[in-house]
Amino acid sequence: MSAIKVEIRTGAYYDSVILMQLQRTLAEQPGIIDAGVVMGTAANKDVLAQSDLLVPEAEVANPDDLVLVIKGKDESSAQAALDKVDELVASRRSSGGDEDYRPHSLETAAKMLPDAQWVLISTPGRYAAGVSRQALELGKHVFLYSDNVSLEDEISLKQYAASKGLLVMGPDCGTAIVNGIGLGFANKVRKGSIGLVAASGTGLQQICVRIHQMGRGITHALGTGGRDLTEAVNAITARQGLDLMARDPDTKVIVLVSKPPSPKVADELVRAARSADKPVVVDFIGYATASRRVDNIFFATTFDEAAELAVKLVDSEEDFASEPDISKFAKGQRYLRGLFSGGTLQYEVMLILENYLPVVYSNAPLYKKNKLEDSLVSVEHTLIDLGEDEFTVGRLHPMMDNDLRIRRLEKEARDPEVALILLDVVLGYGAHNNPAGDLAPAIAAGIKTAKDAGRHLEVVALVSGTDEDPQGMDGQIKLLEEAGAKVEISNDAAARYVGRTLQAIERAIDPPTVEKMQQVALESINKPMAGINVGLESFTESLIDQGASAVQMEWKPVASGSDKLAGILSRMKGKVRDE
Amino acid sequence: MSAIKVEIRTGAYYDSVILMQLQRTLAEQPGIIDAGVVMGTAANKDVLAQSDLLVPEAEVANPDDLVLVIKGKDESSAQAALDKVDELVASRRSSGGDEDYRPHSLETAAKMLPDAQWVLISTPGRYAAGVSRQALELGKHVFLYSDNVSLEDEISLKQYAASKGLLVMGPDCGTAIVNGIGLGFANKVRKGSIGLVAASGTGLQQICVRIHQMGRGITHALGTGGRDLTEAVNAITARQGLDLMARDPDTKVIVLVSKPPSPKVADELVRAARSADKPVVVDFIGYATASRRVDNIFFATTFDEAAELAVKLVDSEEDFASEPDISKFAKGQRYLRGLFSGGTLQYEVMLILENYLPVVYSNAPLYKKNKLEDSLVSVEHTLIDLGEDEFTVGRLHPMMDNDLRIRRLEKEARDPEVALILLDVVLGYGAHNNPAGDLAPAIAAGIKTAKDAGRHLEVVALVSGTDEDPQGMDGQIKLLEEAGAKVEISNDAAARYVGRTLQAIERAIDPPTVEKMQQVALESINKPMAGINVGLESFTESLIDQGASAVQMEWKPVASGSDKLAGILSRMKGKVRDE
Repeated sequence: MSAIKVEIRTGAYYDSVILMQLQRTLAEQPGIIDAGVVMGTAANKDVLAQSDLLVPEAEVANPDDLVLVIKGKDESSAQAALDKVDELVASRRSSGGDEDYRPHSLETAAKMLPDAQWVLISTPGRYAAGVSRQALELGKHVFLYSDNVSLEDEISLKQYAASKGLLVMGPDCGTAIVNGIGLGFANKVRKGSIGLVAASGTGLQQICVRIHQMGRGITHALGTGGRDLTEAVNAITARQGLDLMARDPDTKVIVLVSKPPSPKVADELVRAARSADKPVVVDFIGYATASRRVDNIFFATTFDEAAELAVKLVDSEEDFASEPDISKFAKGQRYLRGLFSGGTLQYEVMLILENYLPVVYSNAPLYKKNKLEDSLVSVEHTLIDLGEDEFTVGRLHPMMDNDLRIRRLEKEARDPEVALILLDVVLGYGAHNNPAGDLAPAIAAGIKTAKDAGRHLEVVALVSGTDEDPQGMDGQIKLLEEAGAKVEISNDAAARYVGRTLQAIERAIDPPTVEKMQQVALESINKPMAGINVGLESFTESLIDQGASAVQMEWKPVASGSDKLAGILSRMKGKVRDE
Repeated sequence: MSAIKVEIRTGAYYDSVILMQLQRTLAEQPGIIDAGVVMGTAANKDVLAQSDLLVPEAEVANPDDLVLVIKGKDESSAQAALDKVDELVASRRSSGGDEDYRPHSLETAAKMLPDAQWVLISTPGRYAAGVSRQALELGKHVFLYSDNVSLEDEISLKQYAASKGLLVMGPDCGTAIVNGIGLGFANKVRKGSIGLVAASGTGLQQICVRIHQMGRGITHALGTGGRDLTEAVNAITARQGLDLMARDPDTKVIVLVSKPPSPKVADELVRAARSADKPVVVDFIGYATASRRVDNIFFATTFDEAAELAVKLVDSEEDFASEPDISKFAKGQRYLRGLFSGGTLQYEVMLILENYLPVVYSNAPLYKKNKLEDSLVSVEHTLIDLGEDEFTVGRLHPMMDNDLRIRRLEKEARDPEVALILLDVVLGYGAHNNPAGDLAPAIAAGIKTAKDAGRHLEVVALVSGTDEDPQGMDGQIKLLEEAGAKVEISNDAAARYVGRTLQAIERAIDPPTVEKMQQVALESINKPMAGINVGLESFTESLIDQGASAVQMEWKPVASGSDKLAGILSRMKGKVRDE
C-alpha cells in the first residue's frame, strides 16, 4: 500500500542542522509516513534499513551523497513531498537574513571581534583540523566540537597549540565552561571555586550540575576531548588545563575527570596533580586505586562522589600548600625505620608509603621482593613488625614487652642515615600497663644519641587508644611528647606525615625533572568570553544568550560544489534551537 | 673489661611472662650491664647476637633449652647474678598464692564456670591446637591468641568448629570485643551499633578507637586471625562473623577488615556481604576497587576512612533492606536497554552495572569482548552511546536531535525480553530546547506498546541539569514523569536503581546457591561474657577488670619435664601487668 520515493543528490556540502530540519519537515507533509534525509554513509544506510527506508536506489549511494527517502501512504503523496523539497527549503529563508554581514574567513572574523580568544569549531570532522590550524595560527584557543577527526590530526594540533601556549579542547569536545560562559553543550552553573578538567563531556556536565545542586559553583570547566588521556595524545590538553587551574587564584579545588584512560597516562597526570598546592579530586572511570587519598589527591569512582568530595574540600581547613620542614635534618639523613607492635598498622603504613617512596623493606612486606634478608638488619626505608611469629617464640608480644623494640630503637638511632623513627603504641586491656613509660626514655635517649652526633632524629609515635583505656591516653601521650616524640592518634595521619617528610627529603637530594611547557596565559581564560563560531549556529546563539561576544563565521567546505540545493539549503540555517 | 656468664637449662616449659620477668630482674642486679633470658631458637639467638650476648655456649643451645646470658661489669658481678636466679624467682612467690584452687583441666574449668561460652588460649603455638580442639569438643568458642600454629591445624580446627556452630578466632588473634568485653588486647570502646569482623588485630583496634573518638560505639568486634582470608582457610571465621553481625539486631553497620587478602576469597566475602540487609564497610588492605560503593557495600582504603564511613552510615536514612519490586514485570522480561546521548554517562553506568550484571554489551564498551556486533541490534543487556562517531556523520548529536533515539526506543519497547529502558536527558545551552517534549510521547507510546502486549516496561530517565538551565529542569522532569518515566537526577543513583532491579530479576530466574552453614547462636555472643583462660594470666585479669566472669586454668604442656627451675618459675606467674 505504502510507497517509497528516493532521490540522491551528489557533490555538495550539507550542514547537519539542515538535514534534520528537512527530514522533519518532509515527515510532516500530508500523507507521509516517514522520511530519511542523511548522508550516504554505511552507518546511515543501516539506520535507514532499521526504519525500512533502505530501498535499492539508496543502497548504492556514496558517503558524500545526500539521500532523500520518503515513505508515503501512496506513491503520489511520496512524490508530492519529494517535489516540494526545494520549495520547503525556500519558504524558510526569511530567518537567515543576516548571513551577508557574516565574515567568510577567520581572519576577517578576528578583525571584527579582536577580543576573541576562542574559536569554536563544529564543521564536519574532515574539515575541522584545517579550520583548527588556522585558528591556532591566529593565536586563538580552539574549542573543537567536531568528531570524526583523526588521531594524527589531534596530536599534531595539540602539539602545535602547546608550543604556542594555546589550548585545543577536543576533538569531540562536547562541553566547556570558561569564565562562566558555556561552550558547546553546557549547563548554567553558578560561579564558585571548583575548577574542572575533563576528558569526558557528559561526565563534566554531570559533575557540574551535581556541584550546583549541592549549592556550590565552579570557576572553569575545561574539556579536553575524549582521547586526550590515551598514550598517543599523552594528556597534552589535560596537563595544560591542570596547570591553569593550579595557577588560577579563584580555583580552590580541582576536579580531574576522564573516560577510561591509559593507566600510564593517568598515573603521570596524577603525579603532575600532586605538585598542585590545592586539593585535586580525580575520577577516572575504571581506574582502581588501593588508596583513596594520596596527599592532595582524592580519588572518586563516580561523578556523584567527585562532586561531593569537591564540595566538601572547598570548606577544608587543611593547608595543602605547606611543605614539611626538612631543614632540621643533617646531610645524609634520609631513611625511615618503623618499629611496629601491630602487624596491620604496619601494613597500612606500608600501603600508604607506596605513594611516597620507591621501596619500603620489611620482615612482613606487601610484596616478596621487598622482604628483608635479615629481619634484624634494616635496609634503607624499613618497617619491622615485631609481633611476627619469628620474634614471639618464648617471648611476649611487643604490646606487652618493649625490650626488643627498645634495643632496636637504640640501634636505629645510631644509624647516620636514619631521619625518622615511627612507633606504634597500642593501649587497651591486655597490653602493657604503661608502654609510654618504657618507651619514652628510649626515645629521649635515641634523640640525644643523634643530637650528640650532629643530627636531628624525628620520632613519630602513633598512640592507638581511647580516653577510657586503663593506661590513660592523655598521660601516655604526654610522656611521649615530653621525650621529644611527635604523637599522632590516627595511623593514616602518621603514615602520611612520614611519607610527605621523606618524600621532601628525597626531592631535595634528587629533584624530579619538570617538563617544560609553554604556559597558557591565565588571563586568556579569565577575560570576558569572546568567540568566533564556525559551524553549528546554535552555539553562537548560546554564546550571545549567555552574554558573551560572538561572531558566526560563514563557512563552507573549500571543495564544496555548486549544487543548487546546497545554495538553497544554506539559507535555511540557524533554526535548530527554535524547532 | 666486662664479662659474660651463661647457663643453659634443658627440658622444661617456660611461660614467656616468666622469661621476661626474669630477664628484667637480672638486668637490674648490681653490676649487670645486660641480660638475655630466651628459649634457644635460631631467631632468639640472632637477637642475642644483636646485643652482643651470643657467646659460644649459647650458640649451641636447642630451641627447647632455656638460655640465660648475663653480662656484668666484671666476672664476679655476672656470676653473682647468675647464682641468684633461683633465689630471685623464689622471692616473688608470694603473689602466686591462688594456683592451688585453679582447675587443671578444661573439663574441670568448664564445671567451675558452666556459663563460659569462651576459651581463651595463649599457650605456645605447638600446644595451642590441642587445647583448642578440647575446647571445641566441650562446645566452647575459641579465642586463639597463640601464634606459631600450623595452617593445617587452623583449617582443621575451623572446619570442625563450623560444623558445630562454634567460632575459632585465630590463631594469632590479638583482639576481640564480645558484648562489651575485650579478649586479648582490646581497647575500652563505648557500646554502639557498629559490628566489626577483622582478619587484623591492630586494624580492628585502630578502627574501634577511631569510632570511639568520633563519638560512636560498637556491638561486637570479632577477630578471625590474620590468615582467615587466605585461599587455604577460605574465610571460615569471617563468614561466620559476618553472618552473626548480619543477624544481630543491635548491629546497624558492619565493618569488615583484613590484612592483604586473597583476591578470590575477598571477592566471595564481599558477595556474601551483599546479602546482608545493612550497610557493610569493607577495608581490605591493598584491595583496589573501581567502585567505591556497590549496593550496601562501601569500600574504604584506610582504617580512618572505614571508621568515618561506618560512623556516617549509622545515621543513614537509606533502607538497605528493601528489595526492588519486580512483580510488575511479565515472565520473560529481563533485559536492560540504555539509550544514551552522553558517552561518559554511559561509561559510568556500565562500570556500575559490572557489580550487578554478568555482561553488558555496547557499541562503546569498557572491554572489547563486550562490543556489539551490530550497533543497531541490541543483545541481552545493551547500552548504546548514540553520540558515537558512527552515528554522527551528517547527523546532529543526539543531545540536539532525538530522532534516532526515539526510533530505537520504539523498537526496544516491542522486544518482549526488555524490562527496563534507561535514557539520559541532558539539559543546558547548546542542547535541544525541549528534549522531554520530544521524548515524553515516545516514552508513553513505548510503555503502551508493552502494556498492550501484557508487559510492564519501566523507563528510567536521568535528567542531568540545573534549575537555571534554559529548558527549565522542573518542567522537563514533569513531562517525563507524566509520560510514565521514573526520573533520577544522579547518574550514579539511576545506574544503581537499574542494577538492583535487574539483579533481582536475574535472581528470581536463577537463584544463587547459598552455602549451608551451621549457624552460630546469636545468644552465645550476646550473653554476659564468661571465659576460661589458658595461658597468659593477664588475660584473665583483664576479663575480671572488665566485669566478666573468668577462670584461669593451670596449664602445663603434657610433655613438660620435672626440671627444678620450672617448678620454681611456675610460682612466679601472674605479674606481667603489675611490672
